[in-house]
Amino acid sequence: MDKKIIIFDSTLRDGAQAEGISFTVEDKIKIATVLDELGVDYIEAGNPGSNPKDLAFFQHFAERGTVRPLKNAKLIAFGSTRRKGIAAAEDDNIKALLQANTAAVCIFGKSWDFHVTEILRATLDENLQMIADTIQFFKQASKEVVFDAEHFFDGYKNNSEYAMRVLQTAQTAGADAIVLCDTNGGCFPNEIFDITLHAVEQTLESGNPVPIGIHTHNDCEMAVANSIMAVQAGATHVQGTFTGFGERCGNANLSAVIPNLQLKLGFVCVENLAKLTQTARYISEVANIPHNRRAAYTGKSAFAHKGGMHIDAVEKSSASFEHIDPELVGNERKYLMSEVAGRSMLIGKIQQISPELTKESPQTIEIIGKLKELEQQGYQFEGAESSFGLYIRKLLGKYKPLFELVHFKTIGEQPTPVRPLGGFSKTAESGGNSASAIIKITVNDQTEITAAEGNGPVNALDKALRKALEKFYPELANVHLTDYKVRVLDSTNATASKVRVLIESTDGVSNWTTVGVSADIIEASWLALVDSIEYKLIREIEEKFKAFV
Amino acid sequence: MDKKIIIFDSTLRDGAQAEGISFTVEDKIKIATVLDELGVDYIEAGNPGSNPKDLAFFQHFAERGTVRPLKNAKLIAFGSTRRKGIAAAEDDNIKALLQANTAAVCIFGKSWDFHVTEILRATLDENLQMIADTIQFFKQASKEVVFDAEHFFDGYKNNSEYAMRVLQTAQTAGADAIVLCDTNGGCFPNEIFDITLHAVEQTLESGNPVPIGIHTHNDCEMAVANSIMAVQAGATHVQGTFTGFGERCGNANLSAVIPNLQLKLGFVCVENLAKLTQTARYISEVANIPHNRRAAYTGKSAFAHKGGMHIDAVEKSSASFEHIDPELVGNERKYLMSEVAGRSMLIGKIQQISPELTKESPQTIEIIGKLKELEQQGYQFEGAESSFGLYIRKLLGKYKPLFELVHFKTIGEQPTPVRPLGGFSKTAESGGNSASAIIKITVNDQTEITAAEGNGPVNALDKALRKALEKFYPELANVHLTDYKVRVLDSTNATASKVRVLIESTDGVSNWTTVGVSADIIEASWLALVDSIEYKLIREIEEKFKAFV
Repeated sequence: MDKKIIIFDSTLRDGAQAEGISFTVEDKIKIATVLDELGVDYIEAGNPGSNPKDLAFFQHFAERGTVRPLKNAKLIAFGSTRRKGIAAAEDDNIKALLQANTAAVCIFGKSWDFHVTEILRATLDENLQMIADTIQFFKQASKEVVFDAEHFFDGYKNNSEYAMRVLQTAQTAGADAIVLCDTNGGCFPNEIFDITLHAVEQTLESGNPVPIGIHTHNDCEMAVANSIMAVQAGATHVQGTFTGFGERCGNANLSAVIPNLQLKLGFVCVENLAKLTQTARYISEVANIPHNRRAAYTGKSAFAHKGGMHIDAVEKSSASFEHIDPELVGNERKYLMSEVAGRSMLIGKIQQISPELTKESPQTIEIIGKLKELEQQGYQFEGAESSFGLYIRKLLGKYKPLFELVHFKTIGEQPTPVRPLGGFSKTAESGGNSASAIIKITVNDQTEITAAEGNGPVNALDKALRKALEKFYPELANVHLTDYKVRVLDSTNATASKVRVLIESTDGVSNWTTVGVSADIIEASWLALVDSIEYKLIREIEEKFKAFV
Repeated sequence: MDKKIIIFDSTLRDGAQAEGISFTVEDKIKIATVLDELGVDYIEAGNPGSNPKDLAFFQHFAERGTVRPLKNAKLIAFGSTRRKGIAAAEDDNIKALLQANTAAVCIFGKSWDFHVTEILRATLDENLQMIADTIQFFKQASKEVVFDAEHFFDGYKNNSEYAMRVLQTAQTAGADAIVLCDTNGGCFPNEIFDITLHAVEQTLESGNPVPIGIHTHNDCEMAVANSIMAVQAGATHVQGTFTGFGERCGNANLSAVIPNLQLKLGFVCVENLAKLTQTARYISEVANIPHNRRAAYTGKSAFAHKGGMHIDAVEKSSASFEHIDPELVGNERKYLMSEVAGRSMLIGKIQQISPELTKESPQTIEIIGKLKELEQQGYQFEGAESSFGLYIRKLLGKYKPLFELVHFKTIGEQPTPVRPLGGFSKTAESGGNSASAIIKITVNDQTEITAAEGNGPVNALDKALRKALEKFYPELANVHLTDYKVRVLDSTNATASKVRVLIESTDGVSNWTTVGVSADIIEASWLALVDSIEYKLIREIEEKFKAFV
């Protein structure tokens, strides 16, 4: 039995329908490239008839394709059947599909009688004819044709006889695959299973079976399960997106469907499953959407353990709290720093800095005590492991400050006497600066005093500090902040509450996160900023040292 | 047939295990209150044995409970069975559970033989005895007991005979409900269905059936479907969290499970389903986690339609692209890129201030345009309706400022040259002030200039503003802030990013929330502060006016 499941990715087409997502042609090329490296079978890259930018992509990609052709995947263009009352060859959408110049096309047609009569305002027979004509047209043009039966499950529930006739029509017209769509995302796993089974049986009974596919949406948060159930009913082709992007609640998330099928049910989906996590995170990055840390398989928290008991158990046997080995999908296990975390996880971090220490060493016990104290103060080191590493260094005496603060002063000022709607618009609209900072530091007995302006005191201080330090550490020019998060702790003290600031930094190669806590947001930000800079510099020194040894 | 499904919320316990979530006691009280208003049956609020903060919550809540008791929900405390080799009455975790002083407890015990022998290092019989003893102990203490069979599905797959014996043991010992847990989140819908069915049949055959529950995790992105399948197999109790928070990939998302069961399968879960969206978004807000816009049922994009064909179809019949009516869950339809978006939802709010306006009034259209502009800038009025009301007043000319700012200046300063561990400890530890603010305002041509010190510039400015205003509005003495939240928007600009500040205020009788947005955190805080004060004063004036008429 051939256990291959065809993976049909629609991130660039259905995924691009999501609110807040807008891919450039360059973005699409990047995404198509990583999807190809992962090993998906089809990349549905756009609807050239409804979107001229998509047509540009296909043409652009075809040109570049000669330089760097796709290794595994086929590009596929998406469009509707011909409109009613017009020949396929005359329909603009169909012409646009031909212009896309792909080896394969995906055609969607209606299979819900209600949609045919009420939305399309065609007769049921007219609709069948539109489907047949369109598929035959593309087969005559030597295209591979995937037929998406839109609203198939809702259609089946309303008029199963007609919905099944749509499939038959597509099969007779020569479709190479027929895909059952839960377009509104309202169906349940048991329904998907039963109805898919019926569709698979019908094509088997025809004596010349066509592969049946599944296309689900996540409006009930069951798109992944629905895809799995369809495969268990005999579907051999799955459509979805990374990482579930799509209109409304999104499409079936392929970054969960693929490992579910491949690791748990023994199907073959993609060649390079270990690239799954990096692929999913990269696509989120290109889409400029933070990758969901709780994402199944690929999230940063997917294999993160917090409770002390859980950590001890995972140390004894990872299967105790992990459903798969994270390395299979290119992810990694993580023990979170937290008040509930046990000593066994801390020792690993401590040993990275002082390998000779054990769980029982007095320094270890002291570090754990200090850690609890800091957590009491509102520190939180999960997600700020770089700060944590610096604290361990400080506590072990393995730390020498790379600069010293002599003093700083920040000044915020609002001269605008009237507050118009939306803010102090004079400064805000002109892009002017509402704050300035003066800073004086010393590095190896050399003093530097400088100043900067910024949007608010934190930004001014950030700029002033970098300006002062770059004189001594020019490598800091590559470092910039990629994220700045503020969490008010114990908010009952309102504006006098403690705040925790998390800063994520990058030097273009790697990212690190640091933390600061104070009732003064400037101080909290300062602490996280200083840690960020020191982490970078210490790591640099260590790497140079390693290269030297 | 009673179609009631018991909803057991664990946001405050299992949800708090999530990476990046850390609830204060105040946060927990707020969340418990809205869950109760939605109508869940149980609120599992913590593990008093492993976390002293959780014990504080139960005690704190019990005190407040007399003033404002929960209407529907029972609070429930969570903990493990007694440890091996110790009597239940002597076990510290069990004592802590008693101290929590709840009417109901949830006890978890092992049902996977591998966990018993390899992790717990007990014999299989010892484990059964631990379960029996613990349940009996709490039944004798007149507690309602929910028993969570940890790792039940993995256990069943490894040794079904033993896993089923665990359930029998719990039932015989008197458990009021027995919950099957897919602790590692690795199980598939068909497995969950078959195994749950077996468990339900076993308890039915006993002649004295106990309700069977389901507790799933989202490691395969199938937790919602797995919960549904268990109910279809006969489970009548569902555990989960809002909005899927939990360790690793999270728990079953109740904000999807509840409407799936109630709207699609005809079960009764909660009384106030129309509060679902606001509840889910509020909990995300309290957790300071952006609410997933693609969340099923409750996300901002859940019923968002992009231009063209879909909108036309939805206008003809909403069922064409919507699986349910969004109002059933308190969400709303949204047409992206459409000027009529949201008009019907806004008109209600506008009419509160100007009852004569209609959807078509030019003022209504102007307000909608302005709102879009503000949202573009990063404003968000959900959860800040007081600011929203003020904006409508401003746009309708029904607003007169109650004071005018002449100018302010904030100064932050750090003279401590060395930064010891944990911060600028000299000022922080002595409770000294790191910032000061000068403010000059006018009220009815009278000028007031004053100054204050504070912990950071925002706090100093807050104090100075109140000090200046109390001279004119002594009623402000009763007002204080109860919450202060900062969210960084578009965090890629790091410290120059726009921030949105939400401030919650109280006068001891009611609470209100206001919002400000700016790249300068001081300005954003200022805008929200001013709105908070003006809202209070305007409402006061209106009430006096009503009493006068």
